[in-house]
Amino acid sequence: MKPYAEMTADELREEITSLKQVYKQYKALDLHLDMSRGKPCTEQLDLSMGMMDVLDSSSDLSCEDGTDCRNYGHLTGIDEARVLLGDMMENNPNDIIIYGNSSLNVMFDAVNRCYTSGVLGNTPWCKLDKVKFLCPVPGYDRHFAIMEYFGVEMIPVPMSPIGPDMEMIEKLVSEDDAIKGIWCVPKYSNPQGYSYSDETVRRFARLKPAAKDFRIFWDNAYGMHHLYDDHQDYLIEILAECKRAGNPDLVYKFSSTSKITFPGSGIAALATSPNNMEDFKRALKYQTIGHDKVNQLRHVRFFGDIHGMVEHMRKHADIIRPKFELVESILEEQLSELNIGTWTKPLGGYFISFDSLPGCAKAIVARAKKAGVIMTPAGATWPHGLDPQDSNIRIAPTYPTIEDLKEATELFALCVKLESAKKLLAEMEVSESN
Amino acid sequence: MKPYAEMTADELREEITSLKQVYKQYKALDLHLDMSRGKPCTEQLDLSMGMMDVLDSSSDLSCEDGTDCRNYGHLTGIDEARVLLGDMMENNPNDIIIYGNSSLNVMFDAVNRCYTSGVLGNTPWCKLDKVKFLCPVPGYDRHFAIMEYFGVEMIPVPMSPIGPDMEMIEKLVSEDDAIKGIWCVPKYSNPQGYSYSDETVRRFARLKPAAKDFRIFWDNAYGMHHLYDDHQDYLIEILAECKRAGNPDLVYKFSSTSKITFPGSGIAALATSPNNMEDFKRALKYQTIGHDKVNQLRHVRFFGDIHGMVEHMRKHADIIRPKFELVESILEEQLSELNIGTWTKPLGGYFISFDSLPGCAKAIVARAKKAGVIMTPAGATWPHGLDPQDSNIRIAPTYPTIEDLKEATELFALCVKLESAKKLLAEMEVSESN
Repeated sequence: MKPYAEMTADELREEITSLKQVYKQYKALDLHLDMSRGKPCTEQLDLSMGMMDVLDSSSDLSCEDGTDCRNYGHLTGIDEARVLLGDMMENNPNDIIIYGNSSLNVMFDAVNRCYTSGVLGNTPWCKLDKVKFLCPVPGYDRHFAIMEYFGVEMIPVPMSPIGPDMEMIEKLVSEDDAIKGIWCVPKYSNPQGYSYSDETVRRFARLKPAAKDFRIFWDNAYGMHHLYDDHQDYLIEILAECKRAGNPDLVYKFSSTSKITFPGSGIAALATSPNNMEDFKRALKYQTIGHDKVNQLRHVRFFGDIHGMVEHMRKHADIIRPKFELVESILEEQLSELNIGTWTKPLGGYFISFDSLPGCAKAIVARAKKAGVIMTPAGATWPHGLDPQDSNIRIAPTYPTIEDLKEATELFALCVKLESAKKLLAEMEVSESN
Repeated sequence: MKPYAEMTADELREEITSLKQVYKQYKALDLHLDMSRGKPCTEQLDLSMGMMDVLDSSSDLSCEDGTDCRNYGHLTGIDEARVLLGDMMENNPNDIIIYGNSSLNVMFDAVNRCYTSGVLGNTPWCKLDKVKFLCPVPGYDRHFAIMEYFGVEMIPVPMSPIGPDMEMIEKLVSEDDAIKGIWCVPKYSNPQGYSYSDETVRRFARLKPAAKDFRIFWDNAYGMHHLYDDHQDYLIEILAECKRAGNPDLVYKFSSTSKITFPGSGIAALATSPNNMEDFKRALKYQTIGHDKVNQLRHVRFFGDIHGMVEHMRKHADIIRPKFELVESILEEQLSELNIGTWTKPLGGYFISFDSLPGCAKAIVARAKKAGVIMTPAGATWPHGLDPQDSNIRIAPTYPTIEDLKEATELFALCVKLESAKKLLAEMEVSESN
């Protein structure tokens, strides 16, 4: 089939009629499918059921230093959990704090601390007239939501396959001391699945921000989440690179086991420099007596060490890789000749990013929803949900079964075709009537 | 023996010499005992080891509504956990949010939310020049620490066996709209073990604060923690009383299973009115995708229902009641005739509160420490650690073994005698030399 843009109005009309026919058939199926969130599927969760067996009533719940994990204490986490998460994050265990079940919560808390008590003795952000953050786009809606909560002004920075536009970032942070941070998902980014190049990480580590309390919020959510064993992205470790660049305190780095064991029942962690660590600990002792050490112990005993975790991640990949490949092959088959959209083909992470013709994303998502397929709302990948091109759609292929995913993606492709054809026809009709 | 205050200077000198003799013998024992924090002892923790068995790899980890507890979701907690904690807190499950592992963290977050985004549309406290809280004293040091973190001015309000001075509270809150809250541990209070009388709770529910965004922070940490089955304190349920009084939104109520199952691996909860609940949920969705539902399920399956929890608490009481009674009997035996201190005899909770002669508390705690017995620092029960009388000492009898507790309490009583005698002698010498 030829690209839609090369079709005549009549050809487009014919195409729309035939697409509507198919769409009608889908609607009759009364589908209830969900590709909206990055949730592991049941088979993935089953991989971690062994974690329910490693502790029982006959277990010694003491950690290596002899502390009874059932009682209060150990604000920064038990040593062996810091070692495991340190290996996972490629950081020194001493630079790690183990938190509760949610890295989103650690990130919220990190911003909150800057807001209520300031960074290393600088003015708390709540006392400033204006706080701004840079937000690579498309990005993660929950990062942007934290900004909305605190009334932070968000400045979008365009992403590319090697990371965000570093020239723009370098210029902005060096000129404006109201810019206090930037959100990064540096590996298998949400939603594009891009990984920052060596050059990008090097330039991040060498930023010269006007604001002394500028911090990079480095959300390495997908550091372990390769789809292909023999074809992985590798990222320069940012804390080490910052230290080498003479900028040791520039980064807060976040991760968790949410998509390794159980979302909501995993453990989250922060890695940062010793100075920042003191800053976090100073606040943390007001917030809690300690996080869930029994769950830390459970994770350590389940994985044994980082090799155990890597082997575990290979099993995750075996389950979700076919799903990514299925979505990509359907999009390829249905759309590649039509020039009405592009999509990423990530080597890891949880998402595929789709870009439709400008002005079509909302209509595509709405149409899919009417036929029973829930996508992430169009615009969600932009600050305040406002995608100026109305073109980006995040596809989350992990949760549905292969059968459901096939149906959902075929319907999605159909909606892309239908809305694109309508859009092109409408433009043609406007230009004809002018 | 006669009261120290009735002794002559020479009698006091003789007493001091003989006490110092005994103290020397204690020092030679090289003790390492800890009565500083309200921590359960090993036998108490062992009571909950069955919780490690209720979930294993063959378990269905779905909750009653069919949700897979291993995955994301359920921001306010699973229904059955809300029912269990609702029964525990004497509240409607719909008025409950289940949080993570720490009620301290829920309280910090509650203040934090008021500070960063305000109460029900009122000005965020961080935008106000001055925020004040009422703090019944003696009270819980970690409540006061939260106030310090946010720079809140603390106004001490004296406690009595029926609760804080309500006349003072009513007057202050009605006159000063900078007063935004009060900290209460209404049942088996920390550290005195007092429970608020019906009249006190009724007056709390009928407060007429000048500040619309005034809230009572009702930390019912010890609601289930009776020492005597047949002799319990009962508290009027505050949310219901507030509703009856036409003040439904006045209270945030906190609790957790920290001292029921495992401190640090329990579940915490908030109970509040529907309006406040919406306020909390509005903020909560920025903070996390959800708390640890697997641990919620573990708790529910372990206890079955509130009756299971009540039976469980009876076992706790059987372990710690003898410890409270031991401390009380040693104090009685050693100190009752000397008129140098008073102490509470609580029917529940985790602490005994001791009041020495004015000006002696710091010296007593320091002297005990030099002989190897760690007490909560003197002053900790007051805002900023400043007890104006220097007389209150918190005794935490639960953690040590009975043998250690006996030794530690005897040493403590000795230190009380020694420092009191020295104090009285010094006063006598001063008045003689005048």
